[in-house]
Amino acid sequence: MKASVSQQHLAHGLSMVSRAVSPRSTLPVLANVLVATDEGRLRLSATNLELGITCWIPAQVQEEGSITVPARTFVDLISALPADPVQMSLNARTQTLNVRCGGSNTDIKGIDANEFPPMPVPDLSDGIELKVSDFREMIQQVAFAASAEEARPVLQGVMVTVNGAEISLAATDGFRISVRKSALDHASSHPISVIIPARALSELARIAADGDETLVMAVPSGRGQVIFHTRDAELVSQLIEGNFPDYKVIIPRSFKTHTILTTAAFLKSCKQAEIIARESNNVVRLSINPQGDQPGQVEISAQSEQTGSAEVQVDATIDGPQMAIAFNVRFLREVLDVVKTPSVALECNASNTPALIKPVGDENFLHVIMPMHLG
Amino acid sequence: MKASVSQQHLAHGLSMVSRAVSPRSTLPVLANVLVATDEGRLRLSATNLELGITCWIPAQVQEEGSITVPARTFVDLISALPADPVQMSLNARTQTLNVRCGGSNTDIKGIDANEFPPMPVPDLSDGIELKVSDFREMIQQVAFAASAEEARPVLQGVMVTVNGAEISLAATDGFRISVRKSALDHASSHPISVIIPARALSELARIAADGDETLVMAVPSGRGQVIFHTRDAELVSQLIEGNFPDYKVIIPRSFKTHTILTTAAFLKSCKQAEIIARESNNVVRLSINPQGDQPGQVEISAQSEQTGSAEVQVDATIDGPQMAIAFNVRFLREVLDVVKTPSVALECNASNTPALIKPVGDENFLHVIMPMHLG
Repeated sequence: MKASVSQQHLAHGLSMVSRAVSPRSTLPVLANVLVATDEGRLRLSATNLELGITCWIPAQVQEEGSITVPARTFVDLISALPADPVQMSLNARTQTLNVRCGGSNTDIKGIDANEFPPMPVPDLSDGIELKVSDFREMIQQVAFAASAEEARPVLQGVMVTVNGAEISLAATDGFRISVRKSALDHASSHPISVIIPARALSELARIAADGDETLVMAVPSGRGQVIFHTRDAELVSQLIEGNFPDYKVIIPRSFKTHTILTTAAFLKSCKQAEIIARESNNVVRLSINPQGDQPGQVEISAQSEQTGSAEVQVDATIDGPQMAIAFNVRFLREVLDVVKTPSVALECNASNTPALIKPVGDENFLHVIMPMHLG
Repeated sequence: MKASVSQQHLAHGLSMVSRAVSPRSTLPVLANVLVATDEGRLRLSATNLELGITCWIPAQVQEEGSITVPARTFVDLISALPADPVQMSLNARTQTLNVRCGGSNTDIKGIDANEFPPMPVPDLSDGIELKVSDFREMIQQVAFAASAEEARPVLQGVMVTVNGAEISLAATDGFRISVRKSALDHASSHPISVIIPARALSELARIAADGDETLVMAVPSGRGQVIFHTRDAELVSQLIEGNFPDYKVIIPRSFKTHTILTTAAFLKSCKQAEIIARESNNVVRLSINPQGDQPGQVEISAQSEQTGSAEVQVDATIDGPQMAIAFNVRFLREVLDVVKTPSVALECNASNTPALIKPVGDENFLHVIMPMHLG
């Protein structure tokens, strides 16, 4: 292999793929990045066997070849180099990659590219076209509600469903549910229903950040994988096997008290109450107080035996009877952080039934939170 | 106590003192910040018994009083509040501080101010006036060379010497020495020679960052303390007892090979070589190659059995014979980071004797590095 690439392209490509590197694997080659010439470009790949990321960068290829090099050394070296052309050449006998740039000349010992797990060749023929900006927002509004615990693998995933011209993402950790729908530009010829690890989608949101307008999602049959493809990058993830909980039956269909708050003020108040609440299981108590014809108020309070107590008042438009309900304040904060509209609605039925949070004026997103016991 | 202060002043004051809080002390009150009215201002203090920081902020005092409150809760609460007046009032019976701002109303349980270690009342009459910007640069150029190891406490300190109108700071960890001198505007009536913990000076550099032009340093006799006083803040540190090594005898008085390099290029080259060197005890080898009438070159190289090897060339103006010498690359990087001049001089005598690094055109700073064994 002999190729010349720009330092900026190489540094950017490495920042994309290096998140899939697994530095502490028992398989040493997984701590490496694959560097390979590929039809006039340079291909960079990393994988932890569950998640693989590949990207292609422009290159002047003088000689074909491939090698894997330790990700940490390679990434740090490239980012320490000046913004000049980087000349790479492989000594195949010693499996050493020589990297030259400016006055710097480094030999990095690698591992044979044949030891690197083969990345699937994607079959994108049945793929679905997604708008990058839209899909990133969907991921941001849903993935955080997935569970971080390994006990129930399906809860670590996001249920992705495609039906005709509608795609929906849903995640739940058993205490809250986040659901977001969106319309596709082109209807899918076949329905899709898969559970994708939340982490893989979060990485996708990161690498699809800039430039591209569309990406293609493909689920080749019988492979247990999903592939996301943009012009210069590709992410492959294992699917999670299992039955996703029937979350739709939990979503409340009606409400007794309907409260509209300013999203930013509600979020800020939660953050203030959280400073006391975090000392006592994150519990905050919401007292929703309608005041006849006057604008109502929501009082958010927290109490900690050791630290003290907090009460925060927020103005609200309230329809329905007075209500007291307690929540995990972190769940409130996390959903309010991803509500994009200036106002947000909170719909409650009773202190012991799930509450619904949704942006005012946007029917595509909804979030359910289970209440905590009122003390 | 009853007082009103601006949220911004309070947040800024807390960011200054909170670095002296010791959250994991066996003495619970040391995890707290003292909040006290003080002649029409509000005084905030924190101490870990070795280092104490106090600052004063403007306040409208309606009732005198004092209390200590948990630093983490108080700091996080204040920074979560809007930029509005903060009204504080103490319930002396329950030792609870009530904090109101906007719609937020918080009670924080505190500990009686009497349990807080008394802060020394400074006697600044014999104090020495220092220019803040100058003294901060002195600290930055010297404190990093102090030792982080607890084995020899004097090496964790910075030797501060005042003689007439000259002040000098020196620190060494046994492998390198950093010395910086400066002229005082007003000569001191008495000589001073004390060892101040490097950490205390680094904190001083941080809190004296903005606004003030001068600060006063006082060493009250027989108290084993040093006090730094600015208009709105005060830092008190215990002195380190013991004999500071006679570093002056180590500073080389002459040299065989004198090399001048561009500071930025030398630093960048060290960072590139460090990526390989860090895999093998941080050793880099400098090969200083004069080339007659041509500009010379310095080759910085590193070698790691496992990872590979690096060679970086830097242009240099070299006077004297060819020289090979090895250094800990971290030491080179750290001193080059604080050299303020565009060019830097490296003076060597042999591969096994200390080398001198100094800014070209600035006689006030010098740095000695012991070489490593050439393999």
